[in-house]
Amino acid sequence: MADKIYRINMSTLSTAVEEVPAQWQGHGGRGLTSTIIAAEVEPSCHPLGPGNKLVFAPGLLSGTTAANSGRLSCGAKSPLTGTIKEANAGGTSAQLLARLGIKALIIEGLPQEERWYSLAIDEQGITINEETELIGKGNYAVIEAMGQRIGAKTGVISIGQAGELKMSGANISIKDPDARIRSCGRGGLGAVMGSKRIKYISIVPTDKKVAIADPEAFKAANRTFAKALVDNPISQALGQYGTNVLVNIINEAGALPTRNFTTGQFEGHEEISGETMYDTIVERGGKPKHNCHAGCVINCSQVYNGPDKEYRTSGFEYESIWAMGADCCVDNLDYIAQADNLMDDIGLDTIETSVAFGVAMEAGVLEFGDGAGICRMLSEEIAQGTPLGRIIGNGAGSVGRAFGVTRVPVVKNQAIPAYDPRAIKGIGITYATSTQGADHTMGYTIATNILGVGGSVDPLSHEGQVELSRNLQIATAAIDSTGMCLFIAFAALDDANCLPALIEMINARFGINLTADDVTNLGKTILKTERAFNQAAGFTNLDDRLPEFFSQEPIAPHNVVWDIPGEKIDTFWDF
Amino acid sequence: MADKIYRINMSTLSTAVEEVPAQWQGHGGRGLTSTIIAAEVEPSCHPLGPGNKLVFAPGLLSGTTAANSGRLSCGAKSPLTGTIKEANAGGTSAQLLARLGIKALIIEGLPQEERWYSLAIDEQGITINEETELIGKGNYAVIEAMGQRIGAKTGVISIGQAGELKMSGANISIKDPDARIRSCGRGGLGAVMGSKRIKYISIVPTDKKVAIADPEAFKAANRTFAKALVDNPISQALGQYGTNVLVNIINEAGALPTRNFTTGQFEGHEEISGETMYDTIVERGGKPKHNCHAGCVINCSQVYNGPDKEYRTSGFEYESIWAMGADCCVDNLDYIAQADNLMDDIGLDTIETSVAFGVAMEAGVLEFGDGAGICRMLSEEIAQGTPLGRIIGNGAGSVGRAFGVTRVPVVKNQAIPAYDPRAIKGIGITYATSTQGADHTMGYTIATNILGVGGSVDPLSHEGQVELSRNLQIATAAIDSTGMCLFIAFAALDDANCLPALIEMINARFGINLTADDVTNLGKTILKTERAFNQAAGFTNLDDRLPEFFSQEPIAPHNVVWDIPGEKIDTFWDF
Repeated sequence: MADKIYRINMSTLSTAVEEVPAQWQGHGGRGLTSTIIAAEVEPSCHPLGPGNKLVFAPGLLSGTTAANSGRLSCGAKSPLTGTIKEANAGGTSAQLLARLGIKALIIEGLPQEERWYSLAIDEQGITINEETELIGKGNYAVIEAMGQRIGAKTGVISIGQAGELKMSGANISIKDPDARIRSCGRGGLGAVMGSKRIKYISIVPTDKKVAIADPEAFKAANRTFAKALVDNPISQALGQYGTNVLVNIINEAGALPTRNFTTGQFEGHEEISGETMYDTIVERGGKPKHNCHAGCVINCSQVYNGPDKEYRTSGFEYESIWAMGADCCVDNLDYIAQADNLMDDIGLDTIETSVAFGVAMEAGVLEFGDGAGICRMLSEEIAQGTPLGRIIGNGAGSVGRAFGVTRVPVVKNQAIPAYDPRAIKGIGITYATSTQGADHTMGYTIATNILGVGGSVDPLSHEGQVELSRNLQIATAAIDSTGMCLFIAFAALDDANCLPALIEMINARFGINLTADDVTNLGKTILKTERAFNQAAGFTNLDDRLPEFFSQEPIAPHNVVWDIPGEKIDTFWDF
Repeated sequence: MADKIYRINMSTLSTAVEEVPAQWQGHGGRGLTSTIIAAEVEPSCHPLGPGNKLVFAPGLLSGTTAANSGRLSCGAKSPLTGTIKEANAGGTSAQLLARLGIKALIIEGLPQEERWYSLAIDEQGITINEETELIGKGNYAVIEAMGQRIGAKTGVISIGQAGELKMSGANISIKDPDARIRSCGRGGLGAVMGSKRIKYISIVPTDKKVAIADPEAFKAANRTFAKALVDNPISQALGQYGTNVLVNIINEAGALPTRNFTTGQFEGHEEISGETMYDTIVERGGKPKHNCHAGCVINCSQVYNGPDKEYRTSGFEYESIWAMGADCCVDNLDYIAQADNLMDDIGLDTIETSVAFGVAMEAGVLEFGDGAGICRMLSEEIAQGTPLGRIIGNGAGSVGRAFGVTRVPVVKNQAIPAYDPRAIKGIGITYATSTQGADHTMGYTIATNILGVGGSVDPLSHEGQVELSRNLQIATAAIDSTGMCLFIAFAALDDANCLPALIEMINARFGINLTADDVTNLGKTILKTERAFNQAAGFTNLDDRLPEFFSQEPIAPHNVVWDIPGEKIDTFWDF
């Protein structure tokens, strides 16, 4: 059975199942969401208006047994940045959708009435239902209700209060195998789902399997691929300490943005480090290893318990911990865990929202270090949609504009994450040139600038940063199309067996003959498609710049500013 | 004595008096502020950061006896739009500065400490003083204190609480001859003054006079000029009813944006019309005629009293009355007068703020028609800087983003004023192409589209609108450089004696020989200077567009949409 496109029109409350057009056949994940948005959305449209579309697409390998292939891509025009946007997450939905033969869901239009809806997907197809009971509730209430109404294995894609309130910091939650939450985090896609008045999408599991053209070749390649992942030392570190292994590393590099980006090292770094977190998890009977989707062999997630040994949060990422920790000066993992879980429930991007709190602290709304205050504001202001809650829930740029703060770390209005571009210049190129605003995952130069993966490029030099970011952004666009977790990149960069095995799996899945060059070209095409959308929306090279304070304020301990000239940044697009 | 440039550095708290560079000699008013900003401000700088400058400049004829020449221009990079910005107002300051031989004040840098300051200008020069007593107070308190501290005739340029709070809707107030307020209204220039922590500028009058190269020729030309103004029928209507004569005219044209731009006629138009206002003023012992600066022969201002016959407001403009009236559906002039006076005191642009209230009403923050609610929110939220006050005080775009509203009437983030571009297409060209965001005064096509001044161009046709807006924008840029009130344009367009007399006055003032072509070229040069700044700040032709809802929602009674294609709009710049 060939995969289909499911199209949901919220203006007419009707659905349709369509054949996959030939030009979309070779695409999955981000490649497909960006291709569809570029083809069907007028770039100048209001992101919350009837012209925007919300597209979900599993990756090319999602639903197969391929290791780490469980990412679901979500795309739209972003209400935060005004650019094209793709965000992907683990959880069970990518695999469930792929096994149902769904290549993409395209949600378009806006309901005529002020009612809320859900989408229900199963083997029979898709239906639109009115929803009342869960409106105003958090993501965990939705997951629990789906478990009771449909069954424990039901896939759930949902928004919390932030998405309902159309906040630009709202994410989209994807239920994981343990009924916890993974998030399509960045760019405010939850607000787009909220504008379409869809509270959640439920997916009933099927016994069907994804068709594999050459099962033996697939199996062999997957073995090689999984071995490359498991053997990789970065994979192993991620498995032990999670992504939060980075706190001490980035602090040591002097690139841990602290106190709203005013210095590069955090006094309290030990208290929030991956090592401290690991010890705490073990001591309190949590799980240091946890996977966000079946088939993951890295297990960078974890279950973090409180002092009472009860569950607090999972998927406790470095960037979230940095943002509430160093950037807001909260040196207490328990507050950070509580806030992380609240943001998951309310449906807020932890990076955008926490950086927004950092700017709000600079504005005097809260004291730096007030972890209890962050938790209170999340529950009492943001989830309630008070005016202050809306200011913060709309992100760091919103807080800066509301309070007249000039030190606002955003590119294209999206918050800069956990690596200071003054001290790690490659990541500054990624922030500046990314088609989607500041986002470390778009071209993770930290790998080479700091971790020595894929060679070595001095983080403080101007040399090689543009090329590094370009190569990684191209590779990332391709990886994001496979349904693979980005963490395969460490093995792909350093293990000669990894990438060929990945390509072999794609070939075996579809009975085709892609080469490494084809995959690189796919990445290039995706970036260019995304950039063309942005240009038609009004973006130019002058938007590919960091905020001026990075050029004016040296950051300790290296006492360096951001000083890569605009003309050099612009050479990024010479390919 | 040659005119001088006064430069005030707030970083070092020092001042300097400089000769006027040759290339600035021929400029005054907007031509000078825009030339200085373009020359000295990095276009990509943060408008509230140390790189922005705030420039005040009297016009070329300010301080002379020329009729209607009392406008003061203020320029900076706008925190509302991100474009270059000039706003001008009457009052006494332009004349006082010109007579002191001050061609421009350039205020640069930011104070190192969190203190507030004032600038004191007199014949001896300029001093920077710390100010404490008036901080947190409104503009009227400043004017009153200056009267007591220095003298009743002291010129005052000040900001209210909105400017202190760096709100993008904050204006700069200029004291008029009766110690009332005129405003450099649009673009949030009050926030720039607030960022520089200057609460007010006081100007002690001088007995000095502006030097005139050929006094006899000047006098003769001024007689001709003033007669052209006085004889003009539009001048006369403005003198009787004020600008608010337009409520019934624009309502009749079906172009009075009502209920946040959802229809083109307001049921309550009679209650808020210029005719009703005139009758009310007369009945309550107000003044139907009032001038905002000495030498004005039009007298479009007025003094509006309450039912108790006590003063309520003056300078009660059509656009303010429209915005609170039709756009917010408040059909009660007393509430509108109270809100107008509050906004003057708090230092808020009445257009931006009232359109912001219209969007807030659509978001459900207030009911449409709740005039008392507007007054309460002005005092209790905006003036206090509460989170809701900041959302509204930052303008219509801010409210739209905070509450996820898609019907937000702004261009380049500045609120569209009192003429619907769907039903008067010429003004839509002005809104789209203006170098300073939506602003009717930049190229007031209403003159020709509706009032039959300077010919006639059908408001509903596509034909001739670009040319009309272009010619008016060029002429306006030139007029804004003279210190003349824009209302001389009606006579200039229809009376063959008017414009030659104006040029003759400039020639007689400076002993030069400008031709009409020179004046047109001046206007063109100013527009191109402003546009070049904006382009360097990242603006492109795609920013010269109206919000999409104007193309999607027909407006009654004509049931027309905005349908002038982008390519046609772009021909505006073909000169």
